[in-house]
Amino acid sequence: MRFSAPVPLQELARLIKANLIGNTQASATGINELNRVEKGDLAFVDHPKYYEKCINSAASFIIINKKLDFPKEKALLIVENPFEAYLAIVDHYRPFRPSTKMISDTSTIGEGTVIMPNSYIGNHVTIGKNCIIHPNTTILDYTSIGDRVVIQSGTVIGSDAFYYNKKTDRKSHYKKMTSCGGVNIQDDVEIGAGCTIDRGVTSDTLIGAGTKMDNLVHIGHDTLIGSNCLFAAQVGIAGATTIEDNVILWGQVGVSKTLTIGEGATVYAQSGVKDSIAGKKVYFGSPVEDAREKMKELVWIKRIPELWEKVMGRKNQ
Amino acid sequence: MRFSAPVPLQELARLIKANLIGNTQASATGINELNRVEKGDLAFVDHPKYYEKCINSAASFIIINKKLDFPKEKALLIVENPFEAYLAIVDHYRPFRPSTKMISDTSTIGEGTVIMPNSYIGNHVTIGKNCIIHPNTTILDYTSIGDRVVIQSGTVIGSDAFYYNKKTDRKSHYKKMTSCGGVNIQDDVEIGAGCTIDRGVTSDTLIGAGTKMDNLVHIGHDTLIGSNCLFAAQVGIAGATTIEDNVILWGQVGVSKTLTIGEGATVYAQSGVKDSIAGKKVYFGSPVEDAREKMKELVWIKRIPELWEKVMGRKNQ
Amino acid sequence: MRFSAPVPLQELARLIKANLIGNTQASATGINELNRVEKGDLAFVDHPKYYEKCINSAASFIIINKKLDFPKEKALLIVENPFEAYLAIVDHYRPFRPSTKMISDTSTIGEGTVIMPNSYIGNHVTIGKNCIIHPNTTILDYTSIGDRVVIQSGTVIGSDAFYYNKKTDRKSHYKKMTSCGGVNIQDDVEIGAGCTIDRGVTSDTLIGAGTKMDNLVHIGHDTLIGSNCLFAAQVGIAGATTIEDNVILWGQVGVSKTLTIGEGATVYAQSGVKDSIAGKKVYFGSPVEDAREKMKELVWIKRIPELWEKVMGRKNQ
Repeated sequence: MRFSAPVPLQELARLIKANLIGNTQASATGINELNRVEKGDLAFVDHPKYYEKCINSAASFIIINKKLDFPKEKALLIVENPFEAYLAIVDHYRPFRPSTKMISDTSTIGEGTVIMPNSYIGNHVTIGKNCIIHPNTTILDYTSIGDRVVIQSGTVIGSDAFYYNKKTDRKSHYKKMTSCGGVNIQDDVEIGAGCTIDRGVTSDTLIGAGTKMDNLVHIGHDTLIGSNCLFAAQVGIAGATTIEDNVILWGQVGVSKTLTIGEGATVYAQSGVKDSIAGKKVYFGSPVEDAREKMKELVWIKRIPELWEKVMGRKNQ
Repeated sequence: MRFSAPVPLQELARLIKANLIGNTQASATGINELNRVEKGDLAFVDHPKYYEKCINSAASFIIINKKLDFPKEKALLIVENPFEAYLAIVDHYRPFRPSTKMISDTSTIGEGTVIMPNSYIGNHVTIGKNCIIHPNTTILDYTSIGDRVVIQSGTVIGSDAFYYNKKTDRKSHYKKMTSCGGVNIQDDVEIGAGCTIDRGVTSDTLIGAGTKMDNLVHIGHDTLIGSNCLFAAQVGIAGATTIEDNVILWGQVGVSKTLTIGEGATVYAQSGVKDSIAGKKVYFGSPVEDAREKMKELVWIKRIPELWEKVMGRKNQ
Repeated sequence: MRFSAPVPLQELARLIKANLIGNTQASATGINELNRVEKGDLAFVDHPKYYEKCINSAASFIIINKKLDFPKEKALLIVENPFEAYLAIVDHYRPFRPSTKMISDTSTIGEGTVIMPNSYIGNHVTIGKNCIIHPNTTILDYTSIGDRVVIQSGTVIGSDAFYYNKKTDRKSHYKKMTSCGGVNIQDDVEIGAGCTIDRGVTSDTLIGAGTKMDNLVHIGHDTLIGSNCLFAAQVGIAGATTIEDNVILWGQVGVSKTLTIGEGATVYAQSGVKDSIAGKKVYFGSPVEDAREKMKELVWIKRIPELWEKVMGRKNQ
């Protein structure tokens, strides 16, 4: 998430009651998760396991719960609870402001685009030219849509990430990581009916140009989908995953989080992808294997009784 | 279902044209399915297999198609078709009255709760404090929602149970069991986008405090879900099932009806739970097994060719 | 798709810039895909593999990219790109005209039917008597609904087919086949919440009388579903498939395209149907097999370690 203008670290330190050390005169341009952080950004870390990675990342400014050595051009903002500090910053600089209108005044709709009845267009939404937004569609805050995009009825773009921290507090076992990112849908994308595409936690979920999705498809937060992919109905893709160009996922395929599916891969129906898989190959099974190997395996299973009979001298149990 | 006030059995007997015997001066406080029945309730039974169970249940008054012995403090309402009698009672005492407003006058919305545009709030709905009901959400009759609940766009709460009797009549092969129960969503629950949660047939579907669901999750009628559960996207849970506290179901898991998943169980993605499973364990597969055993099984399958070669003297088919 | 009145071939030839030969004075009554074509219809073919089949089909008039022999009562409309010609004809004779009203003036609603708030009824929709259309439902152009039909909230009827031609042009890798068919829902059908039913590409998707569907079910374009079927939650059926009468599909079953499931078949939860299967049998697995055989197979797999020990003299790896 980019701030609308750079924010002085001293202002941020006051907001989150941090002990600010290092380059105290600098300003931050945004706040991002560790895997999406850029120079000028704030990042936050609360687990010793990630201290080193965070301090050596592109992040210029680190919200942290321990004083550690760091490059002199950077700064640390030391607080007891960096996660709460993140929530406070998002709440302050990108607060949730529920629109009371069906089409928010802060949205921009391109020429030739049709918004059909009962659709909701949230704050800071941009839609390009010659799009069709079918009835009963929901497009939430900070979604950006290119040209010639079709979004069918019942679909929700920009729902919150399913992202919780298991921090026990008095009211609830899980604490939500507030989403402040958006969804970026490129030109010529078509999204079927009843789909759900979550916004990124701090940056954008991306649907690449020319990709087509059938109905009831789920795309998790921060997932990056390439160009000209085809996803059949009821496919589900978890968060922070990368799907490269020209990937074909048949019906009801499930894809786990933070992995990569290589360019041009095809995954047959109902398969489950739990680790990264290489491109230009065909996969099947849950968990997936090379489709031809998996098919052979199914044949081998059918030969167990024959093997049993040969070895045990009888086929029956 | 509770009647708004106790109903004299003689009034009920007239409505359903029953032969009333036993404690004929009593009044019924409600009507419920056999597995949810309480003292003072009516229950109904039409199959000899369940006669004994029904007469000896907590139900005080039994709608039945045969005269049988029964405890003297109870009453029987003898009719030819108890199922039709049930439908007539529900139709009379809790008729479907479609609201013509987007927010029904009979609903109650707590302080600090935001109802966003295009959402529908039905009759006798109660929503607590500081909730967010996102755009294009549907909350149907007799739903009760606690405090700090978030319901994302496109979600439907309180749809009718998928519950049909296979009674052939002239117009249709299946006859619907009218739903007259509700949905009870406790504090701090968060429900993703595009989910569907069915109302109970006679009592309530329950979502326990602090439970979080991702998008496109389906929860069947009368299912009881504990506290602080996590359900990933596209999970489906059939009717009248019990999920205890702290259960984690990963993406696209399917759970069959009327079973129990024990406290703290974890079920991996795309698994199918067809019988009850114990708590505090990890499961995988369709049907599910202990996850570690299932993983070993997948390795054993890969060794069949080696076994074949050893036994048959050649690996090829 | 039927034209509102027969269209002279010469008018069509001018529109698509075709070389018209054969019965040039005739008029076409409609345009349909090869597998749905009737006498008097136009059909189109661009691949040599289907030339013969198309010319010998019921189609009276063929849009084609090669001059071939044909029966003298027929006509050929020769163009460079028959697919583009199809799109031009649909665009001209059945253009997409987005309604700006929640209930289109060109729709017809029967007596006793309730349309609840926030529902959208498109152009040329017909709904019979005593139906309930729950809130936030979307019923798109050219849907036809019988009597006593219930459609629950969030459901979308008549979304576009997921049907693309892999023709590279400058803007997009995949080119959409415009849908001009409809959805035909017969009497006493009940459709759950959050379902999506696609319209036919040129003819109708059909849901037979008395069929009941649970929530989040997907039905593809041109699929023909028989009477009194039961589909549990999250079932997905691809395009142009035939499901005969009294078929039961349990939760999360996936069915591939263009196949047939025979009358009275039952398919257990999470199964995958990739080829046609016979009626009156029970199936399980992905891909499906006879359920009893599949269950036996699961038992055989568990016996591999015993077999291994016997053959190899040790059980461990």
